[in-house]
Amino acid sequence: MTHSLRVGIVGYGLMAKTHTYAYRAAPQLRPVPVRFEPVAMSGRDATALARAAADYGIAEYATDWRAIIKRTDVDVVDICTPPGNHAEVACAAAELGKSVLCEKPLAATYADAMAALGAVERMGVHHAVGFNYRHLPAVALLREMVVAGEVGTVRLVRATWLSDEFVDPDVPFDWRFDPTVGGSTIADLGSHLVDLAEWVVGPIREVSAMSSTFTSERSVAGSSRHVAVDDASCVLVRFDSGAQGTMEVAKVVPRRPCDFTVEINGTAGTLLFSYSRLNELWFGDGRDDARLYGMRRIRVEHPQHPETAGWWPIGQGVGYGASFVNQVFSMADAWPERPWQPGFDVGARVAGVCAAMERSAAEHRWVDVAEVVGDGPA
Amino acid sequence: MTHSLRVGIVGYGLMAKTHTYAYRAAPQLRPVPVRFEPVAMSGRDATALARAAADYGIAEYATDWRAIIKRTDVDVVDICTPPGNHAEVACAAAELGKSVLCEKPLAATYADAMAALGAVERMGVHHAVGFNYRHLPAVALLREMVVAGEVGTVRLVRATWLSDEFVDPDVPFDWRFDPTVGGSTIADLGSHLVDLAEWVVGPIREVSAMSSTFTSERSVAGSSRHVAVDDASCVLVRFDSGAQGTMEVAKVVPRRPCDFTVEINGTAGTLLFSYSRLNELWFGDGRDDARLYGMRRIRVEHPQHPETAGWWPIGQGVGYGASFVNQVFSMADAWPERPWQPGFDVGARVAGVCAAMERSAAEHRWVDVAEVVGDGPA
Amino acid sequence: MTHSLRVGIVGYGLMAKTHTYAYRAAPQLRPVPVRFEPVAMSGRDATALARAAADYGIAEYATDWRAIIKRTDVDVVDICTPPGNHAEVACAAAELGKSVLCEKPLAATYADAMAALGAVERMGVHHAVGFNYRHLPAVALLREMVVAGEVGTVRLVRATWLSDEFVDPDVPFDWRFDPTVGGSTIADLGSHLVDLAEWVVGPIREVSAMSSTFTSERSVAGSSRHVAVDDASCVLVRFDSGAQGTMEVAKVVPRRPCDFTVEINGTAGTLLFSYSRLNELWFGDGRDDARLYGMRRIRVEHPQHPETAGWWPIGQGVGYGASFVNQVFSMADAWPERPWQPGFDVGARVAGVCAAMERSAAEHRWVDVAEVVGDGPA
Amino acid sequence: MTHSLRVGIVGYGLMAKTHTYAYRAAPQLRPVPVRFEPVAMSGRDATALARAAADYGIAEYATDWRAIIKRTDVDVVDICTPPGNHAEVACAAAELGKSVLCEKPLAATYADAMAALGAVERMGVHHAVGFNYRHLPAVALLREMVVAGEVGTVRLVRATWLSDEFVDPDVPFDWRFDPTVGGSTIADLGSHLVDLAEWVVGPIREVSAMSSTFTSERSVAGSSRHVAVDDASCVLVRFDSGAQGTMEVAKVVPRRPCDFTVEINGTAGTLLFSYSRLNELWFGDGRDDARLYGMRRIRVEHPQHPETAGWWPIGQGVGYGASFVNQVFSMADAWPERPWQPGFDVGARVAGVCAAMERSAAEHRWVDVAEVVGDGPA
Repeated sequence: MTHSLRVGIVGYGLMAKTHTYAYRAAPQLRPVPVRFEPVAMSGRDATALARAAADYGIAEYATDWRAIIKRTDVDVVDICTPPGNHAEVACAAAELGKSVLCEKPLAATYADAMAALGAVERMGVHHAVGFNYRHLPAVALLREMVVAGEVGTVRLVRATWLSDEFVDPDVPFDWRFDPTVGGSTIADLGSHLVDLAEWVVGPIREVSAMSSTFTSERSVAGSSRHVAVDDASCVLVRFDSGAQGTMEVAKVVPRRPCDFTVEINGTAGTLLFSYSRLNELWFGDGRDDARLYGMRRIRVEHPQHPETAGWWPIGQGVGYGASFVNQVFSMADAWPERPWQPGFDVGARVAGVCAAMERSAAEHRWVDVAEVVGDGPA
Repeated sequence: MTHSLRVGIVGYGLMAKTHTYAYRAAPQLRPVPVRFEPVAMSGRDATALARAAADYGIAEYATDWRAIIKRTDVDVVDICTPPGNHAEVACAAAELGKSVLCEKPLAATYADAMAALGAVERMGVHHAVGFNYRHLPAVALLREMVVAGEVGTVRLVRATWLSDEFVDPDVPFDWRFDPTVGGSTIADLGSHLVDLAEWVVGPIREVSAMSSTFTSERSVAGSSRHVAVDDASCVLVRFDSGAQGTMEVAKVVPRRPCDFTVEINGTAGTLLFSYSRLNELWFGDGRDDARLYGMRRIRVEHPQHPETAGWWPIGQGVGYGASFVNQVFSMADAWPERPWQPGFDVGARVAGVCAAMERSAAEHRWVDVAEVVGDGPA
Repeated sequence: MTHSLRVGIVGYGLMAKTHTYAYRAAPQLRPVPVRFEPVAMSGRDATALARAAADYGIAEYATDWRAIIKRTDVDVVDICTPPGNHAEVACAAAELGKSVLCEKPLAATYADAMAALGAVERMGVHHAVGFNYRHLPAVALLREMVVAGEVGTVRLVRATWLSDEFVDPDVPFDWRFDPTVGGSTIADLGSHLVDLAEWVVGPIREVSAMSSTFTSERSVAGSSRHVAVDDASCVLVRFDSGAQGTMEVAKVVPRRPCDFTVEINGTAGTLLFSYSRLNELWFGDGRDDARLYGMRRIRVEHPQHPETAGWWPIGQGVGYGASFVNQVFSMADAWPERPWQPGFDVGARVAGVCAAMERSAAEHRWVDVAEVVGDGPA
Repeated sequence: MTHSLRVGIVGYGLMAKTHTYAYRAAPQLRPVPVRFEPVAMSGRDATALARAAADYGIAEYATDWRAIIKRTDVDVVDICTPPGNHAEVACAAAELGKSVLCEKPLAATYADAMAALGAVERMGVHHAVGFNYRHLPAVALLREMVVAGEVGTVRLVRATWLSDEFVDPDVPFDWRFDPTVGGSTIADLGSHLVDLAEWVVGPIREVSAMSSTFTSERSVAGSSRHVAVDDASCVLVRFDSGAQGTMEVAKVVPRRPCDFTVEINGTAGTLLFSYSRLNELWFGDGRDDARLYGMRRIRVEHPQHPETAGWWPIGQGVGYGASFVNQVFSMADAWPERPWQPGFDVGARVAGVCAAMERSAAEHRWVDVAEVVGDGPA
């Protein structure tokens, strides 16, 4: 019988659902060295929590997250709350010796992210940040091909994340519009872009950002509240390597529900991923015969491709859920010898770069990432 | 606690895996009135069976399928064997009063399909055929829009299913090349197309088919065997309604792994689905303002779309697995009051149309479907 | 100074315009060994003719086409009338020793097409049929790659031509609905598909066709006329080589303005052209590394590609007009030593295959092309 | 007989060819109130000039451009030389009372552009800058829809122009790498993006730019020269309206030959144009029924669409050449009562914005466009 790690989930929303789905689905898809079994869940709304626990098939639950993380039958704490709460839970869990999976971004501020990193490192527990899109086959192949030199030296990067979540000015104020709870849009969506860019291209050295909040007041409970969160931000980035790039995140783009793209141009080739067609990776090989000039649409479902083990025959396609299942595979395969990837070190680093972007937008100038992250290891 | 239906799975290959995945994943995605719990599995290769049972998390297994279907703790028999075996198992299961889900095609011959239909009807058990693609949101929306009259009266249908499974002449002979076991390519891939076409447009009246087997000998165990299964078939179809269409199935198409498309042209609009981008449905509304002339790419992930309940926020995408999960939802929601859809009546009807296509190809002439299916209810 | 061939154009409609445009544009794009200079035009409606002649910049015109073709300053007769009239003009022009370019289809009947072929062969004049799509770079590259063996042996062909020209039942009866004048839709659109298929894959041996006329009455001048022309036709084709294919033409497809596609599947690769994106050719190379599994979108604008000489830098794109300009280049480059390609022999052959398709649809059976074309050279 | 304007073309390269093609093709496509007839051409290389003049069918030519512009039979001077030379020729032509069409960018520096503007305004001659992409039907429709309010208030703009012209480090040094002659890549490609952005969205107020020259030395005639021109530049832009945007130009992108895109996001909708499929415009209408959520691909070839007059039936497609032909239509239709659009005022304004971008990149800070363009009318 496969050994199990028992998981306590803090939060009961969409991420709690995707994680629970993934824990349960993973061993159906391929043998895993260790199973993750959700055993308890917390949430502040007792009624909603009870219903979620029933829906997800989790027997134990409590409105106090501290009650969950200290349970002796919890090995791993899985943090699925809004960003502003992440670090506090992560620190507490680590102090209890629990391994921690934290949804992205690791924290709403760089200081919090560093505190969380400090806690897991001090306690020596396993730690991971939920940058799930790394685990899409096409994204993983993109990185694999860059690392293998198949596009030569990377010169240009452009990445966007466009949604329509905030288009409607009548969407009322909630935690997503409160930067201390939900964090900025740079942190929410941009953290994925920064993670992928640094994973693929290396450290970002310097940024110039611009942000807008087009709907600056939103109503809640009969009154109006000022919105400090960015509706949209664009950023110029310079990498340590000399490569340059652009990133854009926006939640005010009509008829783009969750459209994330990344393109890499190297000296020898181009790679292009578009999440709306997530089973594909476009590759323009600059060394091809000119008679074949153009890009190929790779169907990233072949057994030779990364993150495909356990999945369907080629041509059938996977969806969003696969990113979480593959995240589970990654954690299971590493346990217990190897650290989880990406860890809080990455999460803190990404938080630092995002903080530099926020500062750049606020101060209307280029900001060196080192201004924010200092000379520390992160 | 949700009531469970206990499932005995006959077969342990890919379909056994997709079904098991779906049984386990479904309740993670949304509350279901009844759970399906795989409890036992059969297969002829004892070693492979034991490994599959362990992989899928199924406690009981036996090399004799009769031992599985007669277990008192089995409520539903789920048939995942090659087509030539389907009817025998289905009849036996029905005789034991078990409900039956049978993978498509219902049988390798029309006579077998009718026998299976007779058995389930006589015994009054629930019965379903695994035409899983009906449960893709975009396919379901396509039908919903046709039924709602959004394209007017259907005039033209074109459907293709192209794969490269048989391109390599060095693929050795196995059961897929034996029509009595695997059935024809018309039956294997064409059954999906016929099911969808009749579901959306109504009965097919007449067909003219053409088949080719380009690799007529394949080696096995040091000798060579004649291949009788079609590598590719094309069919003209005339519907009772007067609509006309084409269908093509082929397993010798390089770099098309599993590319299934269907297009419907009505008096007022066009709908187009391409499985390689399964979260999309193209709609050309003939009544649109001419300034907007063209087709729209509907992202079929909105809560207003069929087969999306329980799934991810719009823009995230589902994959092949969702078709099976939604099939489980459909069966769970119907249980026990309503029949499962599509049932063996549909499966037998489709087998009849496929048989008419096979006869047409063999006899090089138009064949009226009534020649094959007679005047019976199917 | 470049020598000029003086052209008399019979007809003044769209094809007269595209040809005139092409004659005038060609030498602007690259040096040509001989220029084609439109000098005279005919048409039955004197007022419209005069306006067209002024618009196109043609000095001489007459309502009697015979007056045009017999002019001593006309070297080439360019036939741009409805199909039913083509052969009569072509024969008369050839008898006068004029070279002839005839729009496709060469005639509305096979007999007429053979008569036209006989005339040009007897008189030894240059002759060409306006299968202009051969001259699109992507179509030419498709053939070039097939001929070079880059997809191996061709097994499957599928071609469609979908438009919405006849969708509206209120479009009044005109010559397009009269088969003796406009020819069938098989002849109008299908002739392009047959020409391309035979050019690329070789002779078609046998066909099974199905046709529908959904709007069987159309009004004209206050009364109603029966429509005998097919709104849509589908055809199974078997080539001499053993390859099989499907063709479909339809003018009742909402929101498809002129969508022509052709796909070729060989033992080693797939090629796919879609006219709505005419500067692209998709190529799936079955011998590619499996890690690159998929198809490439070739941008067919590179100097190494056929039919690109004289055109724009890569990435800029050409349109419909380029097919006619390249047709002029082809005729100019061949003059006077080599025959024009494709000639009336091809036009007659295509008319024969189309006639076999029409007969198949009428008689509801497979028809061997030899039944129609006999054993003659065409 | 239509009146003609006689054109003297300064330069004999690709732009001289596209313009000549357009002058000659335009009246073939639709009646024009005035024809443009190229009568003379200049160029420094006598041999190449003579060949070009013969190729283009231009009778008169001279190596001294001054000899061309002062000819009494020249009404319009058409400047097709490298950017560094534009202003000098434009000023001289205007001083002679000639109307002037100048290729973009109007000049290599803002001062030169202002000088050219001053000259044409002082002399009261007609003047136009060759921002030909405005005349693509899809681009014109994009603007028309924005102006008509069909996307609401514009909030976000993103535009890119990616080519591979400079990818190969072995491309030798020539005038394109000398900023005083060829101008920067911001000026070359970015001028199109700035023109379109300001035409559609209004004035740009402020910019933050970043540039890279990855191949900083290129060989020429056995030695090596330093390259000061940017290989790639990215820019954040803030519009007067409060909208924000990104622009990127790059000539080091493998397998992107000339890929220009622009996306506009308003409060009510999204518009997206991609030059590689230039007959299409994507429109996401935020007010659509949610069941149709997504974007439509408008086939911008309908008679109701702008810039389609005289062109082909819908579905046939136009190419790059159409942008120049439509530019001629625009000039012909305005002559002589109305000014040409866009004029040198636009050209100078664009040069000012591009200069602000160059300064921003050089000084590593946000630059207000007013720093460069002052308070003048441009």
